[in-house]
Order: sequence, then structure tokens, then C-alpha cells
Amino acid sequence: MTHEEYLARVTQYIKLDKNNQHHEDEQVVLDKFKHLLTYQTGTYDQDSSYQALDTFIKTHAEATMAPGHRNRVFYMALPPSVFVTVARGLRHNAYAQDGVNRIVVEKPFGKDLASSNQLAQDLGQLFTEKEIYRIDHYLGKEMVKNMMTVRFANIFFSQIWNRMYIDNVQVTFKEPFGTEGRGGYFDEFGIIRDVMQNHLTQILSLIAMERPISTDAEAIRDEKVKVLKCIPPIDIRDALLGQYISDGDARRPGYLEDPTLTNKASLTPTFAALVLWIQNERWEGVPFVLKAGKALDSAKVEVRIQFRNVAGNLYKNAARNELVIRVQPDEALYMKFNNKLPGLSYQTIQTDLDLTYENRYTDLAIPDAYESLLLDVLRNDHSNFVRDDELSAAWRIFTPLLHKIDQHDAEIQMTHYKYGSRGPDELDAFVRKYGYDRSNAHYDWPVQSVLTKKD
Amino acid sequence: MTHEEYLARVTQYIKLDKNNQHHEDEQVVLDKFKHLLTYQTGTYDQDSSYQALDTFIKTHAEATMAPGHRNRVFYMALPPSVFVTVARGLRHNAYAQDGVNRIVVEKPFGKDLASSNQLAQDLGQLFTEKEIYRIDHYLGKEMVKNMMTVRFANIFFSQIWNRMYIDNVQVTFKEPFGTEGRGGYFDEFGIIRDVMQNHLTQILSLIAMERPISTDAEAIRDEKVKVLKCIPPIDIRDALLGQYISDGDARRPGYLEDPTLTNKASLTPTFAALVLWIQNERWEGVPFVLKAGKALDSAKVEVRIQFRNVAGNLYKNAARNELVIRVQPDEALYMKFNNKLPGLSYQTIQTDLDLTYENRYTDLAIPDAYESLLLDVLRNDHSNFVRDDELSAAWRIFTPLLHKIDQHDAEIQMTHYKYGSRGPDELDAFVRKYGYDRSNAHYDWPVQSVLTKKD
Repeated sequence: MTHEEYLARVTQYIKLDKNNQHHEDEQVVLDKFKHLLTYQTGTYDQDSSYQALDTFIKTHAEATMAPGHRNRVFYMALPPSVFVTVARGLRHNAYAQDGVNRIVVEKPFGKDLASSNQLAQDLGQLFTEKEIYRIDHYLGKEMVKNMMTVRFANIFFSQIWNRMYIDNVQVTFKEPFGTEGRGGYFDEFGIIRDVMQNHLTQILSLIAMERPISTDAEAIRDEKVKVLKCIPPIDIRDALLGQYISDGDARRPGYLEDPTLTNKASLTPTFAALVLWIQNERWEGVPFVLKAGKALDSAKVEVRIQFRNVAGNLYKNAARNELVIRVQPDEALYMKFNNKLPGLSYQTIQTDLDLTYENRYTDLAIPDAYESLLLDVLRNDHSNFVRDDELSAAWRIFTPLLHKIDQHDAEIQMTHYKYGSRGPDELDAFVRKYGYDRSNAHYDWPVQSVLTKKD
Repeated sequence: MTHEEYLARVTQYIKLDKNNQHHEDEQVVLDKFKHLLTYQTGTYDQDSSYQALDTFIKTHAEATMAPGHRNRVFYMALPPSVFVTVARGLRHNAYAQDGVNRIVVEKPFGKDLASSNQLAQDLGQLFTEKEIYRIDHYLGKEMVKNMMTVRFANIFFSQIWNRMYIDNVQVTFKEPFGTEGRGGYFDEFGIIRDVMQNHLTQILSLIAMERPISTDAEAIRDEKVKVLKCIPPIDIRDALLGQYISDGDARRPGYLEDPTLTNKASLTPTFAALVLWIQNERWEGVPFVLKAGKALDSAKVEVRIQFRNVAGNLYKNAARNELVIRVQPDEALYMKFNNKLPGLSYQTIQTDLDLTYENRYTDLAIPDAYESLLLDVLRNDHSNFVRDDELSAAWRIFTPLLHKIDQHDAEIQMTHYKYGSRGPDELDAFVRKYGYDRSNAHYDWPVQSVLTKKD
């Protein structure tokens, strides 16, 4: 690539807002930004490439920087096979001697507990844990970043956040498309490695962890590790696995029909519902149900905390309270609760206390997760990055199940669901088994009619 | 009045909805309704008047009714001086012998504990408690009727509803106009008798009472009486009294300048903030601040439950949670809580989980309080009416303070506030003394900007 080709490539997705009143002309800003960029080629395994990079940085970028502040951030957007090779090349040849170094790495962080620990060990010999930023981009999402504030800055949430009041927790990830020609890549990982061991487990740990002693990154990550360590490996009997099949439309083939998939007897799940149990004082007996699937009926990530029934309820058939945190799309937080039907009736209806961001907030500009996380790297804030022991604790929960799937263990039962459906038919019975109570109460959102039916 | 004059008078405020799609033509319905009405004149203290009424009912209205179901409801829209006289006339001469009798009475129910008990005793010799419906029309208001459902059908409210989590409770009544030529009448009662001993105390008892054993009227009223009996009489040191003065505009004269007011040295309060303490396990130490005033800056009735600070809060300067129930205008229920400022910042902002009826509900038709209460009378549901022992328990709380005011006791200090203001200047310090924490956090409703200020 020439320098111009590089610039064209890295700026092709930047959208200019012609109507932006708040900043100087965006085209001017973009041009300034381009002047900061340099393209330096090299080969992954040659020291000379990294030495050339080091020389370039020293003579150009760092020439005008104050001594002691010649800091370097290395962001590795690379395939996992060259993680360690490149990290080694950087450490040996391009490591800042007159400032701090930070290295940003991306998943996959191994394929199971052993390979993840090996990677952590290899990387740990090159960079300290303080220098490493493992990205889980869900930690950069607005509502995920909000979870600690919601839990710990509000007394009315904090006091009901335990097994006495919460019956079950559902963390749901839905994607409306299948592998669509990336089946060859996906088949090596499956939905559990792709989104559950990392993204959904991170959400779970933010919901379930104890209050950290401060908002410092290490205090937060200490608590996340602690709660993950209280979770035993997932029992195969607490798992529902599925693969999608075609709905009959040739444009939406089944998973095994993906032309890039070579193993036509694959048992890689494209859908999974997994129940995690946290064996501590706060959560014992409360199922945390993680659900994720490709080729489903919608695009959605949400947390649904379902509370217990009211003991000795005066209002028969009143639905359970539910706190829903919608991560995407359309950030929202709402509490489903019971209210008197407005009007002459004394009937109870299910309604909600709502905070939908786009209705409540003006001047709303939710940053992309990466925008937020890369800023955190510059700020030296590790709060929203995955620590080595945290990664290990998460893999420990999933590895035995993953190995059974990889080995086509006889206990593995694969269900099937149609492309574009809600998931396997077995799902409703599965979540019901773990206490989830789908109320029969009629519920509409964002508006609901309160007209009483005439007899 | 002729029959036609009577009909014109009683139907003059009925509004026809020309666009109503749900019912038959409203003019037809109104005409049918008029045919059900009869105007019968009489004199309060003459048996013959009541006998004529009885004869008329028997020969006309009851002629087509089934035996045993010739029920009568007497609604007494009368000055208090003739309550007992008319009740006696009805009891002796027009009491249904072949069905049930119900008598509906309106405040004022006496002027203090003794006179109220006397009235209850006089009425009790004529009608049984089951036959008597004492109207407090606030109990017919939508959000007041909703309070039990909100408290007892929702686990997430029920568990924080006590002294461990609630710091203070404010029940506020604001009227934007003064006595405006009715000062002569008002001066005999004052704001405490007018709205606090009855309406605001009813709201307080619904917020503070224990869970009744059922939703039966007697079970509910048993609990209301119990909680009122836990409240000692108001200490004069827990009271802030005020009278409004003119703001300089001749159209808004001060209370003492009302031409109908004869006692120009009146100490009748037009504003009061009174603190009630409930001496039981749930509420000891939690001030319930009732605030009411005429000639204030707005028309509003609301309940504001302010929660305690989060212990060991990680988020400094985070505001307290508050549950606000707006009774009027514009029925709403919302929980003020702390959220992360959306965007790149980790700052905490105060926002809310909202249920504003007119935004959430379609086909919303909130009935007038009287429409709801008179239907309750027909349904034989005493839940939203004041029982004799409840009335007595409420008067017991207010009577010593009222007597001090009536007697111009030396301890009475009268503050003053301008017509159209928020109340006496002393009010802010008064509520602060009882724990109310007016947060400095910026808060806008119904939308708020989340733009971060540039440095």
C-alpha cells in the first residue's frame, strides 16, 4: 500500500456530520487527523521490521515530545496465530525506553483454559499485566459501562439485589443472521466461545459481583474474579445446544449447508442456553441463564432480572417484577411492575417505569465501544479490560463443556431451529425449568391501551 | 325550582364527547339519564317532607323493583349544621324497609376530636357504620387508589419501604389561589382542617400502613386506624405556619385583606408544614412532612419519598433516590435515580424511571373522584371511605395543635409569604431540619441534555 492508499483505507468509514454546530469544520479536523497518520510496513517475524518502526517513531513522532513522556500504545489487530510473535518483536525492538508502553490485544484469547493460560504466560514474559489491555468490546458498550452506577449508586436497587428477591437472571444475545459464508471460521469456535465465554460472562460478572472497595480498575477486577471463581463448570445437563436449519428459503440456508463449512457432521452450536450457578451467600440457588444464538428472529442484547413473587400477594395473578437492561439496540433500562388499571376498575395491570435513552436524553451521542475503550487505554484505565486471572476464571467455567462438544461426547444433544425463529422449540421449557415465569399478563410497549372490555 | 329548571341545573356541567366511538350517541344517553331524575322539595326539620319523599319513592321508583331489593342511597350535599337533623328525618320517615339503606356524608366532620366524636355518635344512633359512607374525595383520586397496588403487588417497592431505607416522606398540597372572597368561610377552618387532617392524612396512612390481611374494606381500614394510632399529637415545634400576603398586585390581596374576612387579627394558617412521627417498628425516626398552602406558585399534590444515602457510596455527590407519586395534575409515578452520564464520561447524573400516565397509556379516561366514589357506594365497597374510628384517630393527632391556634397560644408563630411564592422563606430550612436533602445535581424533566461541557 502507498501512504495515500493507506489513508483512504483507514478513513473510509469516518462519517462527516455536515450539520454539526458544536465543532469546527469536520473536514478540517479530518485533514488534521490524516497528517498524524503514518504507514510503516514490515514482516511479523523479522527484528529488522520492528527496528525500522522504532527508528521511524523516534525520528518523527517523538522528536517534539517531552522527555519521559515518549509513550507508545501498540494495538494488535492481528490473527491469534501471530499474537506472541509480534508482541515479542515489539518488546525486543520497539519498546519505549523513555515513556510507558501499552499493548492492546483482541480476542480470541485461546480456545480453552489451557491454551488461554499458555497465551497469558507467553505474553506475560514480554509485557507486564499493567501494560496489557485485553479488549472485550462489550465492556465499552454504554449500558454495560452503566451497570456499576445503577447497582451501586442507588439504594433502591442495591437492597433487592440478591437471592431473597431475585428469582432468576437471563442474559440474552440474539443475532438475526447466520454464518453466511464465514462458516469455516465460525466452526472452529462456535457460539459459546464467540460471545458467551467473553461478552455474556462479562455482563454476568458486573451483575453478580460484590461492591468493589473503590472504583479503581484493580478493585473492580478483583470482585469480578471473585464472583467468577464461585461458579462451578457448567454441567452438560444445564445446557441446551442448537444449530439452525433453513426455513425453506434458499437465501437462508441451514448452518450445515454453509458452503464454507467443510465438516458437514459438525456439532458446533450456533445457539446455546447455559445455566450458571454462583455458589456464594448472595446468589446460591439463583440460575443465571445465558442465551445466545445466530440466525434468530431479531438483533438484541439484554439483561432481564426477574424478581420473586410477592409473598402473600393481595393481588392474585399479578406478574413478577422484572428489571430489563437493554444493551442494544436502543439503550434502555426499565422496571416492569404492577399498577392499578387506570379508571374505575381495581384490576391490576403490568406496566413499567421506563428510561429509554433516546426519549429521555437530548444531545445523545453514544460512542462506539472501541472509541470508548481506546480512550480508556490512553487514560490508563484498566477497568473495562480483562485481567489475566479473570480470563482464566472464565475459561474454567466453560472448558469442560466445550471439550465435550469438541469431542462429540455421547452426552451432547443437538437441537435444531429454523433460521429467523426464536430458537429451538425446547427453549421455553428449558427456561421454565429454571424458574423463568412468562407472565400471561398482557403487556404492550411503549404505549398500552387501558380500555376495559365491555361485558 | 321547576322540574325543568332542576334538570338544566344538574346537567349543566355534563360534557358530551362528540367523537366518542365506543358508546351509543351521548345525547341519547343523557336524555335517558334525565328521565331517571326527579326533584322533590322539602324542609329539613319537618317529618312530612321526608314522608312525602318516601311516598314518592315507593309509588314511582320502587314500583318496578324486585321485593327485597328496594335499596336507597341518600347523598347529603348539605351544610354540617343540618347533618344530624336531615339524617334523623330520613331515618325516621324514609328508611327503606324492603332493601338496604346507605347514607353518604361530606366533610367537615366536626372541627376537632370532641365535635367529630359527637357527630359520629349522633349519626351512629340513626345509621349503622355499615350504612354510613364518609367521603374524603382524595380517596377517589386515581393515584391514591393506586397506592396499595404499587406498595403490595411489587416486591421491589415492598422491601425498601421502611426506616432502614427511607429517610423522609413529603406529602405536598399546593393551590395557586387564595381565599378570593371566601375568607369568611375559610377563616373558621384554616388549611389544616381544610386539607391536612383529612386528605393528606389519608394519603399518609396509605403510604405508611402495614399490609392488610386482604383487600376487604374492613381489613384496609383496620390497618389505617392502626398506623394513625401510632402517631402522637403534633408538637407545635414540629409545625411551620404561614399566612399569605399580597405580592403588591391589587388583584392578589393578602389573606387579611380579604373583604369577607371579619377578624383582621386572624391567626388562621393558610399554609402549614407539619411533621408527623409514626412510632412503630417500620417508621420510628422517619419524619412525614405534610405541607399545604393556598396562594402558592402552582397547583400540585404529590408524595415524595426520599431514600437514604447509599452507605459507603462509590459515587460521590450522587443524589438520593426519590420515589415521586404525582396525584395531580397529570398523574405520574417516577423514581429518581443515578445513572452514568451517557457518552465517554463516567460522571453520574440524576435521571428517572418514569411512568407518566398520558405518555404511557392510550384510551386513558381518569374518572372524577366522585364518579369513582359514588360507584363504590353502589358496589357497597367501603374501602375508600372514612370509618368512625379512623376519623377519631386522625383528629386526635391534630386537635391539640388546632386548639393552640384557635386560642392564639403564645407559642404560635405566624410566618408570611407572598401570594404566588413557594411558601414562607423559612420552609427550606424547616424541611432540611427534618432530613430532606435538596440535591445540587442538575435535573431536568421530561427530557434532559447530556451534552458534556467542553473545558
